[in-house]
Amino acid sequence: AERIRFILGEEDDSPAPPQLFTELDELLAVDGQEMEWKETARWIKFEEKVEQGGERWSKPHVATLSLHSLFELRTCIEKGSIMLDMEASSLPQVVEMIVDNQIETGLLKLDMKDKVTYTLLRKHRHQTKKSNLRSLADIGKTVSSASRISEVKKEIGLVERNPPALPGGTTAEGGSCHHFVFFPLLLMQLKNKFMKKLPRDAEASNVLVGEVDFLESPFIAFVRLQQAVMLGALTEVPVPTRFLFILLGPKGKAKSYHEIGRAIATLMSDEVFHDIAYKAKDRQDLIAGIDEFLDEVIVLPPGEWDPAIRIEPPKSLPSSDKRKNMYSGGENLQMNGDTPHDGGHGGGGHGDCEELQRTGRFCGGLIKDIKRKAPFFASDFYDALNIQALSAILFIYLATVTNAITFGGLLGDATENMQGVLESFLGTAVTGAIFCLFAGQPLTILSSTGPVLVFERLLFNFSRDNDFDYLEFRLWIGLWSAFQCLVLVATDASFLVKYFTRFTEEGFSSLISFIFIYDAFKKMIKLADYYPINSQFKVDYITHYSCACEPLDPGVLFAPQHNGTVDWASLTKKECLKYGGQLVGNNCKYVPDITLMSFILFFGTYTCSMALKKFKTSRYFPTTARKLISDFAIILSILIFCGIDALVGVDTPKLIVPSEFKPTSPERGWFVPPFGGNPWWVYLAAAIPALLVTILIFMDQQITAVIVNRKEHKLKKGAGYHLDLFWVAILMIICSFMGLPWYVAATVISIAHIDSLKMETETSAPGEQPKFLGVREQRVTGFIVFILTGVSVFMAPILKFIPMPVLYGVFLYMGVASLNGVQFMDRLKLLLMPLKHQPDFIYLRHVPLRRVHLFTFLQVVCLALLWILKSTVAAIIFPVMILALVAVRKAMDYLFSQHDLSFLDDVIPEKDKKKKEDEKKKKKKK
Amino acid sequence: AERIRFILGEEDDSPAPPQLFTELDELLAVDGQEMEWKETARWIKFEEKVEQGGERWSKPHVATLSLHSLFELRTCIEKGSIMLDMEASSLPQVVEMIVDNQIETGLLKLDMKDKVTYTLLRKHRHQTKKSNLRSLADIGKTVSSASRISEVKKEIGLVERNPPALPGGTTAEGGSCHHFVFFPLLLMQLKNKFMKKLPRDAEASNVLVGEVDFLESPFIAFVRLQQAVMLGALTEVPVPTRFLFILLGPKGKAKSYHEIGRAIATLMSDEVFHDIAYKAKDRQDLIAGIDEFLDEVIVLPPGEWDPAIRIEPPKSLPSSDKRKNMYSGGENLQMNGDTPHDGGHGGGGHGDCEELQRTGRFCGGLIKDIKRKAPFFASDFYDALNIQALSAILFIYLATVTNAITFGGLLGDATENMQGVLESFLGTAVTGAIFCLFAGQPLTILSSTGPVLVFERLLFNFSRDNDFDYLEFRLWIGLWSAFQCLVLVATDASFLVKYFTRFTEEGFSSLISFIFIYDAFKKMIKLADYYPINSQFKVDYITHYSCACEPLDPGVLFAPQHNGTVDWASLTKKECLKYGGQLVGNNCKYVPDITLMSFILFFGTYTCSMALKKFKTSRYFPTTARKLISDFAIILSILIFCGIDALVGVDTPKLIVPSEFKPTSPERGWFVPPFGGNPWWVYLAAAIPALLVTILIFMDQQITAVIVNRKEHKLKKGAGYHLDLFWVAILMIICSFMGLPWYVAATVISIAHIDSLKMETETSAPGEQPKFLGVREQRVTGFIVFILTGVSVFMAPILKFIPMPVLYGVFLYMGVASLNGVQFMDRLKLLLMPLKHQPDFIYLRHVPLRRVHLFTFLQVVCLALLWILKSTVAAIIFPVMILALVAVRKAMDYLFSQHDLSFLDDVIPEKDKKKKEDEKKKKKKK
Repeated sequence: AERIRFILGEEDDSPAPPQLFTELDELLAVDGQEMEWKETARWIKFEEKVEQGGERWSKPHVATLSLHSLFELRTCIEKGSIMLDMEASSLPQVVEMIVDNQIETGLLKLDMKDKVTYTLLRKHRHQTKKSNLRSLADIGKTVSSASRISEVKKEIGLVERNPPALPGGTTAEGGSCHHFVFFPLLLMQLKNKFMKKLPRDAEASNVLVGEVDFLESPFIAFVRLQQAVMLGALTEVPVPTRFLFILLGPKGKAKSYHEIGRAIATLMSDEVFHDIAYKAKDRQDLIAGIDEFLDEVIVLPPGEWDPAIRIEPPKSLPSSDKRKNMYSGGENLQMNGDTPHDGGHGGGGHGDCEELQRTGRFCGGLIKDIKRKAPFFASDFYDALNIQALSAILFIYLATVTNAITFGGLLGDATENMQGVLESFLGTAVTGAIFCLFAGQPLTILSSTGPVLVFERLLFNFSRDNDFDYLEFRLWIGLWSAFQCLVLVATDASFLVKYFTRFTEEGFSSLISFIFIYDAFKKMIKLADYYPINSQFKVDYITHYSCACEPLDPGVLFAPQHNGTVDWASLTKKECLKYGGQLVGNNCKYVPDITLMSFILFFGTYTCSMALKKFKTSRYFPTTARKLISDFAIILSILIFCGIDALVGVDTPKLIVPSEFKPTSPERGWFVPPFGGNPWWVYLAAAIPALLVTILIFMDQQITAVIVNRKEHKLKKGAGYHLDLFWVAILMIICSFMGLPWYVAATVISIAHIDSLKMETETSAPGEQPKFLGVREQRVTGFIVFILTGVSVFMAPILKFIPMPVLYGVFLYMGVASLNGVQFMDRLKLLLMPLKHQPDFIYLRHVPLRRVHLFTFLQVVCLALLWILKSTVAAIIFPVMILALVAVRKAMDYLFSQHDLSFLDDVIPEKDKKKKEDEKKKKKKK
Repeated sequence: AERIRFILGEEDDSPAPPQLFTELDELLAVDGQEMEWKETARWIKFEEKVEQGGERWSKPHVATLSLHSLFELRTCIEKGSIMLDMEASSLPQVVEMIVDNQIETGLLKLDMKDKVTYTLLRKHRHQTKKSNLRSLADIGKTVSSASRISEVKKEIGLVERNPPALPGGTTAEGGSCHHFVFFPLLLMQLKNKFMKKLPRDAEASNVLVGEVDFLESPFIAFVRLQQAVMLGALTEVPVPTRFLFILLGPKGKAKSYHEIGRAIATLMSDEVFHDIAYKAKDRQDLIAGIDEFLDEVIVLPPGEWDPAIRIEPPKSLPSSDKRKNMYSGGENLQMNGDTPHDGGHGGGGHGDCEELQRTGRFCGGLIKDIKRKAPFFASDFYDALNIQALSAILFIYLATVTNAITFGGLLGDATENMQGVLESFLGTAVTGAIFCLFAGQPLTILSSTGPVLVFERLLFNFSRDNDFDYLEFRLWIGLWSAFQCLVLVATDASFLVKYFTRFTEEGFSSLISFIFIYDAFKKMIKLADYYPINSQFKVDYITHYSCACEPLDPGVLFAPQHNGTVDWASLTKKECLKYGGQLVGNNCKYVPDITLMSFILFFGTYTCSMALKKFKTSRYFPTTARKLISDFAIILSILIFCGIDALVGVDTPKLIVPSEFKPTSPERGWFVPPFGGNPWWVYLAAAIPALLVTILIFMDQQITAVIVNRKEHKLKKGAGYHLDLFWVAILMIICSFMGLPWYVAATVISIAHIDSLKMETETSAPGEQPKFLGVREQRVTGFIVFILTGVSVFMAPILKFIPMPVLYGVFLYMGVASLNGVQFMDRLKLLLMPLKHQPDFIYLRHVPLRRVHLFTFLQVVCLALLWILKSTVAAIIFPVMILALVAVRKAMDYLFSQHDLSFLDDVIPEKDKKKKEDEKKKKKKK
């Protein structure tokens, strides 16, 4: 340990040693006679083995070693020649120096020199994809080398007479053979796709093991070159070699040599030993490195594990720094232990972030937000210069358009087309683009959201029932609400966000999701009621079904029409009723096919979206194709089921979109006049519902903002809660005047936006999970998305082919999808699982199950109460009640220990204070 | 190694040592002061840890150890007191003896005796399910022991004055305390469900580790008792203790002690060390055991694995015999190597089984079959006395009934109800019951199968087109075919079965499955054509749609009817056309809702069956509930969608079943007269199609028989290929005369039958996969199933509520489900998978991918040709062509190496001969 600390400690300011590519080559007989070095395994981090029969690379796996081979390796290092910082520039030179060294130290007899040299310079065969090039090289090799080598063979290998002179330590045969394959192999090396997995400054370590018949004791060498050198065809990829480990031994122990080769290769790919190998001064340093490795090794009992199983690389690895630092710290690694718990896990910890500190000054938070974000404004544009941004734009554009259509349709439904799809498109485009250009967190995507929709529906019904001018009333509510939001901005009220814990966030978002799902089904049932099925229909009685238009008064033979009269029978259903006729017949109230077709479209769209979304994790097709299909899942499903609808041709209810660029409803224009529609006191009274809207907007906006700004997203440019709210308020004023829907941050799409902009390490070793680096924070993707959305208004003629049930299906999908990964849902599922099938959640390791269930139960009760509230007349105060969740969460502090809550939820920041107070009290008592 | 061989070698005739239950108890402070032994982990085979926060058992996992702790344990065994074959009957006695021994050998100071004894007799707290009983015990403990123990504490633990006298080596306090908790704990122990996991003769090994403040050097003891003794509350389960490992050490190294405790516990659960521990004579034997363990240990490099990950127990474990035998053999275990390949894998190897040897005598095979099966006839009845048989009966009954309904419906469809559901039920019941009583392999379930259905359809169409009496023609074909089958039985033709390789089996079954799937869709499309949808329908124009019956001649005002005349308009569609009217109107050719409803039922039934079947592997609900749902998946789906159909009330086409016990078609009776319907030459000509039927029956029956008799099912009572075919022929005669369908072995249901009768080891350690022991081979389950099926004929009034589309959905399900696990399908899927996502199939490790693809391609071509054949006029020779598969497979011997074929398929038995011949030729040349 002392020594390790010494080796690793020195030269701490020198650059970290480069990544190593390790290749294990074994000496194998080809065609029965000829010996060749054949690549049998390789390592960057995990082992990849050549499947001998399959002629392919195995999947990367954890290299399981035997303890025996590690001890044998240790003996090898103890006894073999260790040559550190050798100065050589070609393989023959290296071999010459090793052999000479061994002869000097008496490890090798002089008469073996030529044979060993010859063997070590045999050509190398690598496991690469068969390309045309390779095949050519193969043919070349077979033709020219076969004859030549057989001669050499006779001379040296088999008959062993007249060992040829070897001028300058280079075997003529080896050398030429070597040069012969060099050029095609270099080309192959360059073409090797595997290079992408290696960083540019990577170096190689070559492990050569094999058995030969002429040696009596093993020939062992560990070489570190002074400078990494390209040793020609030695390595599969064109990477300069730094280390060489050679083990030639007597016949009969090939298995054992193979295992020793694997052991040293595994060691070379171990981060700590790798450092030691670079810094080692002598043999003892290497042995200390092996001992350190042995100390840290994880042991599986032979009776509990089958060594033939290849262990898949783990999702995450402990940092090697821990091990390196241990030599200063000194605590032992714990086996099977619990990973240390860092307080919250993802959701929490936003209590102490700088953005949410209360300044106490007028507009203090807003000014700080602007100051924080201003320096990044330029980079917010050039940071988008990446191909990834393009795919993000496309994906988010489609999601936004889908959302605009869905919400537009539903809003049109809720407000009798006072706000429809066209308003939805226009509003989304205008507000989204402005927000993305100027807001504090441009990754947030604005959209109509569920709560706003609920409020609009209630407001419209209220206006209609009380004969108010809906749009004017709404304008005043919007103005009041915007004013209130601005007051909240000015007073830094967003600091309250830190009291939102996982409990509140998840409760809120789950409720919204449930409303989505519930609404989708409600719509479908309504539709079924509107188009009833004739369940009495019998095929044979088709002659008995009819529906005719008849006059109420049998005497009136012709129906009156604007120009003249027409036969009653020729009238359509609507006309008939309009002109005072009546519908007579047993078939009048039934509509065939439409309901059933709607249900097929509804469930079909949902199932198809789900299936395509999951396609990303399937085994089929290349990753890019799968990712594409998964990203476009919803749009693809919509297209497929619009196609099916068109194919069947049933007259399902379609999305109503105006064919011209004008408000959906003819009763309104693009500007809502502020006065004249309602009595004067309404302008003032609007402040009361506005309060609800303010709370709603504030909650909705800030909960999403908190989720977007979560620590796990590793955002570097900071958040801007105050600035965001400021712009939401300003945009609300614009939207209110134009009669467009109000927009707030939409959780689901914002997270999709972030996901599509995630950056990961590009060169990761096979088997290693790419590391998440951060998110491409910029304003361009969002801005372009909304510009495109605006342009889509002219798509109206296409949009009218979309059946409503398809959109309801998308709605259902969105509701279900947004429940994914919510801890609350995980805990709900636990209720149905027997103990032994429960997944290994971290909180289950630390919190008793009954406490977990109690927590879940309380959350369910809260949501059930909110749901009941939403369904009664009290629905209008729904947003206020969401705040109640925060209160309930605070009350939970008395029911649960802080330890339990830290696992099930986040700790409320104030607790720190309380704890301190408690401590003070205790002290006082003492 | 020498020593191990010696230890393990002796007394080889003594019974194997019993299974061990190992419990790790650690000394922990409870309530800040009181020390207690708390169970923290347990082992039968794998480690289960007590999640300290979660108060629950972790999932069983592979115990990952550190090398360090193993070496520390070795030191412990080297230095501690080893007391083998101690004669003691209670814990205090054991402790007394250990302590005295330590004092004798100078390892322990005399003044520490009491403290050590006191500590070792502290009470034990086990991690069990909180039951009412436990809570009671808890309360009891708290009340009575708290005061008492605090006194003791004062005396010994803390203040250390007046160490109490300990008469007879039993601490009064420890003893009483011990007795106090003994009875409730024993009850708890008995109630512990965990006992079920242990065999009856299991013994316990208790590992006690802990840190105390009064010791300066560790107190270590390893005890083996002469006789296993129940040491009261020491162990969680009421199992007598055989081994005790005690480690008490000075403060500050609790982690290290914990790891040592885990190490010895893991060793005790290791099969080899466990044997050594039972047989060890002295300390050196134990150390040799540890060294052997260390030699065999599997090492994971620290940089490639996170020790915090709990490794799930592997699916299968290498037998410990291999390790034990190694001491005679001597080859090293290979790491990450390939599992040895035992020729074929599952499918093959029936080439050399005794049942398929050709006798060459008349009826030789049949007589041998009878002789082989006769001794088991009695046991075939009493072997069924198990509760498992009941569940198998229920499951297979439902499957058989479903199949009878489905095939009956389809057969009725194909033969215009000459054979319908009722015939299907009756035939299934009669033939199945007789076959199960007398056949060679009573696990086989007879059923209508796809090929027979195909043939019946072709035959019916042929008869209709040529004006033959279908049933009579069929009778003669049946008679001829039965005769031919009997000839095959007499000539032992079933030995040919050994030429069926996986290629043929899978090709055949895949084709049948594809036909199932194709037919299901074809039926649905036909149905859609029959009930066309009016795609021009507009809701508003309902008044314009009509369909009226009008006379062809407008003058005839009333339609003629048997009694008088009626108004044309009052006629139904059928009547109208019957009486010479015409249907006038734009709605006549359309039928609303039925097609769409049918598709909903079709896809719904399929999806629901699939989902419910998969439910077995879900995490929800207890295993039994899941298994039940999965077993009843199809019946449940049928019931659900019949319910939905009834709920919607649309007049979907239903299963036509006669309401009385009479043939489905009124044109036939229960006996088919052999003469009179067709010209005389037809009786002779029937021999030609009969040949086809014979081949079909033979292929279908024997392929299924081969699959049922596969080695992997571990059948013990032998097969009876000749006897099976004999009964199939006899039953064919009966069925032909009664006009019932012909029955052969049905692959899918037979396999389901076997699966439901599989026996597994009952007491398997947590985490260990239960071992498959064999199948409950008997005749009772099958017999009762078919009796029940016969009784179900009276269910006809209920069956008519089943819509046909639901049955088509089941059909689709059966087709898709039977493709599961077929290697051919796996290989087809490989075509779509990128290299790195391909599963780790054994043949991919050994056969180059392009050879695998070539094999798949050839198989696809064969099936495509068969399919084309099936679709043309040549369809009648379809069964013959299946034989062509065998020929194709033989031709493949020239294209693929035997090595490749042994992985992708089985080796054709004849090859052995060929090889020998080749060798002979070679020898001759030499």
